[in-house]
Amino acid sequence: MNKFQGLWPAMFTPVQIDGQPNFDELSRLTELLIAQNLDGLYILGSTGQGVLFTEEQRKKVVEVVSEAVNRRIPVIVQVGALTTDESVRLAKHAQTCKVDGISSVGPIYFPGPAAMAMEHYRRIATSTDLPFFPYQLGNNSIPGDTLSFINNLFEIPNVSGMKLTTSQLLEISLIHNHAGDRLKLFSGSDELLCHASLCGTVGAIGTFYNLWGVQCKQILTAFTNGEYDLAKEFMLEFQKIIQLVITDIWTFLRKAMLIKYNIDIGPTKAPLGNTHKEWDEQKVIEIVDSLEAIAGKLEESNKISS
Amino acid sequence: MNKFQGLWPAMFTPVQIDGQPNFDELSRLTELLIAQNLDGLYILGSTGQGVLFTEEQRKKVVEVVSEAVNRRIPVIVQVGALTTDESVRLAKHAQTCKVDGISSVGPIYFPGPAAMAMEHYRRIATSTDLPFFPYQLGNNSIPGDTLSFINNLFEIPNVSGMKLTTSQLLEISLIHNHAGDRLKLFSGSDELLCHASLCGTVGAIGTFYNLWGVQCKQILTAFTNGEYDLAKEFMLEFQKIIQLVITDIWTFLRKAMLIKYNIDIGPTKAPLGNTHKEWDEQKVIEIVDSLEAIAGKLEESNKISS
Amino acid sequence: MNKFQGLWPAMFTPVQIDGQPNFDELSRLTELLIAQNLDGLYILGSTGQGVLFTEEQRKKVVEVVSEAVNRRIPVIVQVGALTTDESVRLAKHAQTCKVDGISSVGPIYFPGPAAMAMEHYRRIATSTDLPFFPYQLGNNSIPGDTLSFINNLFEIPNVSGMKLTTSQLLEISLIHNHAGDRLKLFSGSDELLCHASLCGTVGAIGTFYNLWGVQCKQILTAFTNGEYDLAKEFMLEFQKIIQLVITDIWTFLRKAMLIKYNIDIGPTKAPLGNTHKEWDEQKVIEIVDSLEAIAGKLEESNKISS
Amino acid sequence: MNKFQGLWPAMFTPVQIDGQPNFDELSRLTELLIAQNLDGLYILGSTGQGVLFTEEQRKKVVEVVSEAVNRRIPVIVQVGALTTDESVRLAKHAQTCKVDGISSVGPIYFPGPAAMAMEHYRRIATSTDLPFFPYQLGNNSIPGDTLSFINNLFEIPNVSGMKLTTSQLLEISLIHNHAGDRLKLFSGSDELLCHASLCGTVGAIGTFYNLWGVQCKQILTAFTNGEYDLAKEFMLEFQKIIQLVITDIWTFLRKAMLIKYNIDIGPTKAPLGNTHKEWDEQKVIEIVDSLEAIAGKLEESNKISS
Repeated sequence: MNKFQGLWPAMFTPVQIDGQPNFDELSRLTELLIAQNLDGLYILGSTGQGVLFTEEQRKKVVEVVSEAVNRRIPVIVQVGALTTDESVRLAKHAQTCKVDGISSVGPIYFPGPAAMAMEHYRRIATSTDLPFFPYQLGNNSIPGDTLSFINNLFEIPNVSGMKLTTSQLLEISLIHNHAGDRLKLFSGSDELLCHASLCGTVGAIGTFYNLWGVQCKQILTAFTNGEYDLAKEFMLEFQKIIQLVITDIWTFLRKAMLIKYNIDIGPTKAPLGNTHKEWDEQKVIEIVDSLEAIAGKLEESNKISS
Repeated sequence: MNKFQGLWPAMFTPVQIDGQPNFDELSRLTELLIAQNLDGLYILGSTGQGVLFTEEQRKKVVEVVSEAVNRRIPVIVQVGALTTDESVRLAKHAQTCKVDGISSVGPIYFPGPAAMAMEHYRRIATSTDLPFFPYQLGNNSIPGDTLSFINNLFEIPNVSGMKLTTSQLLEISLIHNHAGDRLKLFSGSDELLCHASLCGTVGAIGTFYNLWGVQCKQILTAFTNGEYDLAKEFMLEFQKIIQLVITDIWTFLRKAMLIKYNIDIGPTKAPLGNTHKEWDEQKVIEIVDSLEAIAGKLEESNKISS
Repeated sequence: MNKFQGLWPAMFTPVQIDGQPNFDELSRLTELLIAQNLDGLYILGSTGQGVLFTEEQRKKVVEVVSEAVNRRIPVIVQVGALTTDESVRLAKHAQTCKVDGISSVGPIYFPGPAAMAMEHYRRIATSTDLPFFPYQLGNNSIPGDTLSFINNLFEIPNVSGMKLTTSQLLEISLIHNHAGDRLKLFSGSDELLCHASLCGTVGAIGTFYNLWGVQCKQILTAFTNGEYDLAKEFMLEFQKIIQLVITDIWTFLRKAMLIKYNIDIGPTKAPLGNTHKEWDEQKVIEIVDSLEAIAGKLEESNKISS
Repeated sequence: MNKFQGLWPAMFTPVQIDGQPNFDELSRLTELLIAQNLDGLYILGSTGQGVLFTEEQRKKVVEVVSEAVNRRIPVIVQVGALTTDESVRLAKHAQTCKVDGISSVGPIYFPGPAAMAMEHYRRIATSTDLPFFPYQLGNNSIPGDTLSFINNLFEIPNVSGMKLTTSQLLEISLIHNHAGDRLKLFSGSDELLCHASLCGTVGAIGTFYNLWGVQCKQILTAFTNGEYDLAKEFMLEFQKIIQLVITDIWTFLRKAMLIKYNIDIGPTKAPLGNTHKEWDEQKVIEIVDSLEAIAGKLEESNKISS
């Protein structure tokens, strides 16, 4: 069976007060997510604050996670950086750690035409023979004509799929209808988890699956098995929560992870999250419970029907 | 039961060669859509080329449709026009024809702040006591802050819902989560028919339901009853077709309606469709068949299971 | 000398309380602007609320203005309408009134590709042999690639120039550098009057030249003759004023025209200006004076130097 | 006299084949620009590929430039980086090198609300007591409401001005009209050098002033002294050239600097410029000459008049 599918947390990189990665918490989080039977780990992406760490820190994170994983679950490493050279070094290093795939955002800071992004991807992708997943971050983030871009991607032999973090579902369908099995598409907008599954994705990679991976996997599975009403109820509540917490999302996630799993993901590295306000613990518990209560109905109904 | 729900064609207004509405074909189309057991008719919207007809032509269209319908199916009339005054006259006239609801696009041509659109809606809505449905056309078409806009809409007593033609599904969920039953939401992006149903909509209003209303209604119903796989297959094919025909959509629709139903919707009123190329008949038949074949599997499986 | 150049008011169409054009005030305004020695009149554009009047009203406005003008000053008539057919009828009628040029906005309401706009323009332009000026309204309003669009315009023999209402000055320069004398370009952003003159425009068409035509013409002339400092001072104050009045611009303009010229342009036709608040008369006088004081320095310095 | 004014090159950081800064060429370039009597040096911005170098390389660049300058000309150092911490370290280091000001782009990679950018700026600005210049890069790059943003900037005592790289001139005027002398504004769109000077800027910072600093300074000075026609001719040609070279701008600039000054700025650091094609030497000479010929007319006319 294809290992690139299902629900993958865009894994947090826990951070110490001094801004260094917290490798102990990182190992514990790795164990937790494996124990939850999630389908893979996507590390050092936006959620993992990848670009905010130094090259050496990023390499060490890959080493720690891959050692903890010990090939029990597939791992994709996001290696996007300000220079192509750094990304290439990170990709080559990741390969030595026996990870399963490489991913990269497009060029950062300097905007440019499609060809610029393509050459950046080509150099990174061809620096290893691991499956490569370009990471398009944001609506309309594919420069130029989408299908021309996809056709150009096809010329890079180890391009295996894409992470598409967009709320424009038609873009996902368009790529899937054009690429078919040639590209394994992961959606990246958690709040459209079920909706995007109708567009030909093989899975989803997202922030909230660190916290609610179990529930989201249950719901996604149930939805594709016909549990429309519950999936709809869950998604509407999930969207309400995301809208509620988005302004102070990092402090919410930190407190929720601490309460629920006793794992401290630590502070964000500024400027990320530099204005997020502290949450009241009781409020966080209420929010966490409200979503889990809906997923809980699923287990109830399964129990009854079995 | 609430009459504002389900699958509504954004009904064509058939046009004669001389640019006048073709009232004979209009009556025949009305009968067809009623016979197909669709849930309502939305007339003189974008698909009905409403704003391209004169005030007198628009009034006559309402008269002909409402007479043909004879209250067998609910009818909403889109009265948006360049001036608020014309919209008000159209709304008052529609009420005399015993239609079920009024809808209007926001201000045309002159852009403006949210308050401008709100005052336009307020004057049109309060000119009758029929249920009123603002029609937001296009992504990010709600000016200013969405929830403030919705709160202001609440102050117009007969606002009953909205037609939201957007591919930004989160906007639909946001409005639904905020408004609950206070607003009946119709989605207007045909290519996201099933996806949008997860966002709290009560139904969908769209162009393609003139042609494939039966199939789309079957699929939407099946989807909400748990037929995930077939709905996904249908939607991906539907999206592929829409992408294929969009550049020459009006000539496609004209030929398809003629082949399938022997109804001639006629030419578009320029500049709408002024560059659309003629379609090969065989190609149109293939496209129509390809989508219907998927919906046909549903009937097959129903036959077998019954 | 080329008659299509210089400072042209986008002329108001005065409106009666009942929404009809006020032809008496229209004639008086025409006389005023001719007496002010402005360079031409652009009628029934956005400022003239062209699209908000009926076809018959628009024709009558053209008749009244052209009769009042009696060929003392060139007149361009904006004929853009929801249908190409109406625009063609308006263009043909305008030609019978012996106006000097035809202009049209692109398609209204229905968006579309460049080819749709081009066919719309082509049909309108070729319906008369008058010079034709497409009117691009808004930033990035030229669909598709700008230079391809311009090249396509070249194929319509009587296209003589463009009205470009954009704050993207580079677009103006780009078109001028490509088209040279083939297209006479008028800028339409009053607040960039002098800046745009550096981009190869032959003149400017705008709302505020109804009110401050004399001052703006003096400043523009002085600026191109080297009066940099005063032009800069004037433009910064002009921009400050535009920013100050923009939210309630229609009531400002009405009161200012009444105070300064005793001409009542009347109310706007809703939804245009439907939320604009009344201005305090003293405040309007202050604003009018503040700008005129700067232009007045020019006359002072001219007096002294002569 | 205020040292923050006039024409400042956004100085190249010459690069060796191995990707390291080329300090010899950097020193030579510094001497050249000082010898050309330009008004200041803005280093390690986008043109200087600041964010593509390591922290240590950036510090060394500052040391080399400030030593070469030896306080003969003011220097502003761009310290924007992926983390606030790195920016703060770079700012503190720059202060030890006795530079004249600090500048920073807003947050890179992670988008966010105005408050996020403000807190990022606040921490960087207050880490030294040097004048601080936020660098807004791109149209509409100020998050949220512009004037609220400016008001918040005022609360950071050492904020002294801004670098505004936008083609939206109204934004510049808006800020100037609001801030007056409180903020020294530099425009960053070379192709609008003269136009922006009408908006209250004190100077311009840009890429092309490495190559044509002398000519651009002459023209800007002449323009503000009343030489409208020549400035217009120069700007139109300048804009034509920028449009011509923009796709392969880095190879153009490298060859032009080599031909004209025998300074090799070296290759770009990928992904920047990773698809730029080589230029024909003769073509580069033609382009360089074409612009200089226009500025040359100025010297001619000055000679004649003196």
